Amino acid sequence: MKRYLALDIGGTKIACGRFREDGFLEEKITFPTKSERGYEEISKEIISELLKLKTEDTVALGVGTAGPLDRIKGEVYSPPNLPGWNRAPLRRDLEDALNLPVFIDNDANAACLGEFFFGAGKGVRDLVYITVSTGIGGGLIIDGKLLHGRRDSAGEVGHQTIIPDGPLCNCGNKGCLEALASGTAIARKAKEALLKEEPTILKEWAKREELTAKHVREAMLKGDVVAREIWEEAMEYLGIGIGNIITIVSPERVVIGGSIGLSGEDVITKIKEVVGKRVFLVPIELVEIVPAKLGENVGLYGAFAVALYEFK
Amino acid sequence: MKRYLALDIGGTKIACGRFREDGFLEEKITFPTKSERGYEEISKEIISELLKLKTEDTVALGVGTAGPLDRIKGEVYSPPNLPGWNRAPLRRDLEDALNLPVFIDNDANAACLGEFFFGAGKGVRDLVYITVSTGIGGGLIIDGKLLHGRRDSAGEVGHQTIIPDGPLCNCGNKGCLEALASGTAIARKAKEALLKEEPTILKEWAKREELTAKHVREAMLKGDVVAREIWEEAMEYLGIGIGNIITIVSPERVVIGGSIGLSGEDVITKIKEVVGKRVFLVPIELVEIVPAKLGENVGLYGAFAVALYEFK
Repeated sequence: MKRYLALDIGGTKIACGRFREDGFLEEKITFPTKSERGYEEISKEIISELLKLKTEDTVALGVGTAGPLDRIKGEVYSPPNLPGWNRAPLRRDLEDALNLPVFIDNDANAACLGEFFFGAGKGVRDLVYITVSTGIGGGLIIDGKLLHGRRDSAGEVGHQTIIPDGPLCNCGNKGCLEALASGTAIARKAKEALLKEEPTILKEWAKREELTAKHVREAMLKGDVVAREIWEEAMEYLGIGIGNIITIVSPERVVIGGSIGLSGEDVITKIKEVVGKRVFLVPIELVEIVPAKLGENVGLYGAFAVALYEFK
Repeated sequence: MKRYLALDIGGTKIACGRFREDGFLEEKITFPTKSERGYEEISKEIISELLKLKTEDTVALGVGTAGPLDRIKGEVYSPPNLPGWNRAPLRRDLEDALNLPVFIDNDANAACLGEFFFGAGKGVRDLVYITVSTGIGGGLIIDGKLLHGRRDSAGEVGHQTIIPDGPLCNCGNKGCLEALASGTAIARKAKEALLKEEPTILKEWAKREELTAKHVREAMLKGDVVAREIWEEAMEYLGIGIGNIITIVSPERVVIGGSIGLSGEDVITKIKEVVGKRVFLVPIELVEIVPAKLGENVGLYGAFAVALYEFK
C-alpha cells in the first residue's frame, strides 16, 4: 500500500506524520517550532524528521502551513507567526531533500480537505469549513473541489465585514468577523470589561494572568454575567458570519473547527439559532451545521489530504 | 443551425425570443405581464407567442423567471410579483404545449449565465454576477459551472447581513444588503429625509410623485447634498457587500447589473474604492469589477443561456 508523508507547520508546534493511503496514521513526530530560529534552522529539523519517516513506498509529501503562500511556486510569504520566512522556498527545499513530489496549501484549506476526506465533511460535495480560534479562517469545497480563487485567497471567511464601523482588524479592515468573534476579539472585550464598573470574576483573574477567550468561557460557565455577555455577543456575530456564507454559497454542510468553535455544544446550538433567525432565502433545513471531527490531528490529516488531493 | 427559444418572465413584462445557437437573436416578442390575470391566462399567452416563434430546427426552450422555484420539478412558488403562481407547473405546461425540452432557472441565475456566455462575464471560469435594482440578487459561477446550492438558493448575495441591527428586510432578516443598497432602500431613505429639517429638492419632487431611487440619483447629479448622502451611503454598503463576496469566493470577475448597478460609471468607481479599503486578503488587483453588458435584453439572453447550458 502507498504511503504519504504529512507536514503541519504552526507557529508553536510542527507535526510530521506518515499515512497509509487508506487514511491510517502510522507514525507521528512533533517538535516545538521555536519560530525565533528562522527558516533555515527550522527547515533543517523538518527535513531530518521527515527523512526518518520516509519509507520506500512513500509517494508524496503534503504540507499545511500558515500563509500567505503561493501554492504553485511553493513559497511562503512572511506569516506573522513564522518570522523570517520571507519568500521561503519551502517546496523546492523539501523536494530536493526528500526526492518526493511536494504539495503545499495553507492550514485552513488543508484542514478543510482533511475534514472533507476523513472527518465531519465526509460524503458531501459542497462544504464550508470554518476554524475559529485565535483568528478565523476557512475553506470552501464546491462540487468536490477545493476553491482556491485568486492566489489561494478564497475562503477568507473571517474577513467579511459584519459591522462597517466596528473594531479594527489585523488585516486593516474594520468590523471583520475575526475582529468580533475570534479568540483574540473575545480576549479584547474581556480586557475592555475590566475598565467598566460591573463586577466580574474576570477582574480577579486578570490580576494573576493575561485574560484569554478561555477565561471568558470559564467565567461564563461559572455564571459570570459579564463574561456571558461577551461570549454570547461573539457567538451572535459568528452566527451572522456563518449565515452570510450560507446565504452566498448555500452549501450542503458547514463544519466548525478551532478551539473556540469546538469549545462546547452550545456554540453549534447558538450558531444554528442565529442562522435560523437570519437566513430566509436558503432552505436551512438542508444545510447541516456540525462540529469538526479530527480534533488535534486536523493539521496532520489536512496536510496528508493536500497530498492525496493533488497527487495523481 | 440549431435554434433555441427563450422566455423571460418578469412582474411587468414578458419577453419571448428565438436564438440561433451562435447567440444571434432572430426574433423577439414582448407583452405586458398584467400579473393580476394569474397563471392560467398568462401561461396561455406565453404558449401562443412561443408557438409562433418555434421553428422545425428549434431544440429547446430556456426560461428565466422570478423565483422561488424548483428547477428540477419545474415549478414556480408564489413570487411576490406573480400573484397566484402557487406551485405553477410551468415546465410541464410548456413541454406539453411546445413538445420541446424546457430548462428553467431564476432570473438572477439566468442573467448570470447570460453575461457569462455573451456579455461581461465572457472568458473567465469564476464569476460573480450581482444585479442591483428594486432588489439585489445574484449568481455564482465556479470553475465554469453555475452554483445552485440547496434548492437553487445559492448566490442570494443581497441577503447577507451588513448591519446586524439595520432596517428590516423583506426577507425577514435585519440589515441585509438589499435593505441598505437596493432601489427600494434608497427610496425609503429619501422618504425618511422628507421628515428632516435639511433642505432638499426631493421635498419639491415628493409633492408631485412618489420618490424612487431614480429621483435620488437625479437630485444628486443636480448637486443636492441630502440626495448625495443617501446615494453614497447606499453605494458604500454595496461596496461592503461586494467586498464580502470577494473575500469569501475570491472570483476572477464581478459583473454588476441592474438599473442601480448600471446607473453610471461612478457606481463601479465607488465599489472599487470601498473594496480597496476593505479587502486585504484577496489580491484585488486580480479581481475585475465591471458593468454588465447585455443591457435590457439580459433577461432574454439569460433564458437562452439557461437552455444552452443545460441542453446536452
